[in-house]
Amino acid sequence: MSTAAIVVIGNEILSGRTQDANLPWLSTQLNERGIQLVEGRIIPDIREVIADTVNDLRAKYDFIFTTGGIGPTHDDITTESIAHAFGVKVILHPEAHKLLQDYYGERLNDARLKMAHTPEGAELVENPVSVAPGYRMDNVYVLAGIPRIMQSMFDSIAPTLTGKNKVHSSTVTCHLAEGEIADALGALQKKYSEVDVGSYPHFRGGQLGLSIVLRGRDEDMLEHATDDVIALVREMGDSPGAVTLKNTAEVMDIDLD
Amino acid sequence: MSTAAIVVIGNEILSGRTQDANLPWLSTQLNERGIQLVEGRIIPDIREVIADTVNDLRAKYDFIFTTGGIGPTHDDITTESIAHAFGVKVILHPEAHKLLQDYYGERLNDARLKMAHTPEGAELVENPVSVAPGYRMDNVYVLAGIPRIMQSMFDSIAPTLTGKNKVHSSTVTCHLAEGEIADALGALQKKYSEVDVGSYPHFRGGQLGLSIVLRGRDEDMLEHATDDVIALVREMGDSPGAVTLKNTAEVMDIDLD
Repeated sequence: MSTAAIVVIGNEILSGRTQDANLPWLSTQLNERGIQLVEGRIIPDIREVIADTVNDLRAKYDFIFTTGGIGPTHDDITTESIAHAFGVKVILHPEAHKLLQDYYGERLNDARLKMAHTPEGAELVENPVSVAPGYRMDNVYVLAGIPRIMQSMFDSIAPTLTGKNKVHSSTVTCHLAEGEIADALGALQKKYSEVDVGSYPHFRGGQLGLSIVLRGRDEDMLEHATDDVIALVREMGDSPGAVTLKNTAEVMDIDLD
Repeated sequence: MSTAAIVVIGNEILSGRTQDANLPWLSTQLNERGIQLVEGRIIPDIREVIADTVNDLRAKYDFIFTTGGIGPTHDDITTESIAHAFGVKVILHPEAHKLLQDYYGERLNDARLKMAHTPEGAELVENPVSVAPGYRMDNVYVLAGIPRIMQSMFDSIAPTLTGKNKVHSSTVTCHLAEGEIADALGALQKKYSEVDVGSYPHFRGGQLGLSIVLRGRDEDMLEHATDDVIALVREMGDSPGAVTLKNTAEVMDIDLD
């Protein structure tokens, strides 16, 4: 399975001022495409931190996505940081320049011109919302921070991203306490070593509930394991609810090798 | 200023299945206490990854907070991973054992007993919601993943956490395009080098808006800078809105040295 990491760049996320919406959105999109998100980082707008983080991750994973810091203001330093990471210069990208000239005309000032700059060698990523493009350097995709713009950029590149081995998943919900069913789930995990068994307790409407999530590449085996969980929940005196078998890819196991 | 990092542990966050609510909550709480969140990591339930991440971060920052993976099921491996990071054994913690015995009585099975285990040397963190405690190892706080429980654990330790040098902030909102005001903001940043000037565009109700956020330790200087921003917005033909001056601490600059 292909692997990915996401780097959320921005002091405003770390200060709690803005809640990041990009990581959950991207993780869902990637998993649906058979690309497994293996790590997320949230880092400040500091050149060395951005460069070191990107260099660390791009050596480890198939795809890296960064969000944030490519706007027109003085605190947008992602592009100079990515250039630093790759050891190249920041250039005025001819295609990006033309895009912004056509869009802004006489309103294309120095600040906006900043958004036509990329690290040398970058390939542009289209921005259908507000024109100023993202870009790709090798396996690193540099996207905007505003969710609506970031999503439109991702949609532009999505057809070119392909993972392998789609993973299927099913969910059984119940009201058993996690501590009651834990041993039986452990045994089930041993029986179905190819299926990943996870349990996620939650409070909803003041009630404790438990979602048991099964993930695997083999659909038949996943169905058998799901049947076993349903039987188990019934055996323990509860009625399982909302059993879903999703045919989209989702994270299963995490294999870094 | 004291520094902190947060480590969100859990495959369910990386798969997009669950949206993390702990990082934004904790970042706000920490900043209000004068502790600056400098980095966030979202990592899978893999022992080596958890241990390496925690060891990397605890050497760099004053406080580390982990969330997730301390429940009763087989996929809860945070405790063994933290023990591995510190090079100590996992032990049945006598106080935690007693807490769970008192709470569960005869319902204290092997799975639940797992939650009474900690790395050797851990100091417990109270869990007012569901008893099974979190714990502290040196500067690493190991908290639950369920937000309601995590928050109650944090509230238990909050009085013991203290940062230095509270940072004040103000926000001026307007409807100017970021690209129009960027040069003037850059000049303002140069004029007030002790104030951190950030600009955050957003779409709300289909309209593009811009929040200009100023942060600084010197309240008088912050007020002067805020007045300048208000004058600037007016000069550019827009009316500034929602000017707020917060006296709580917030992230200002990020100084890793």
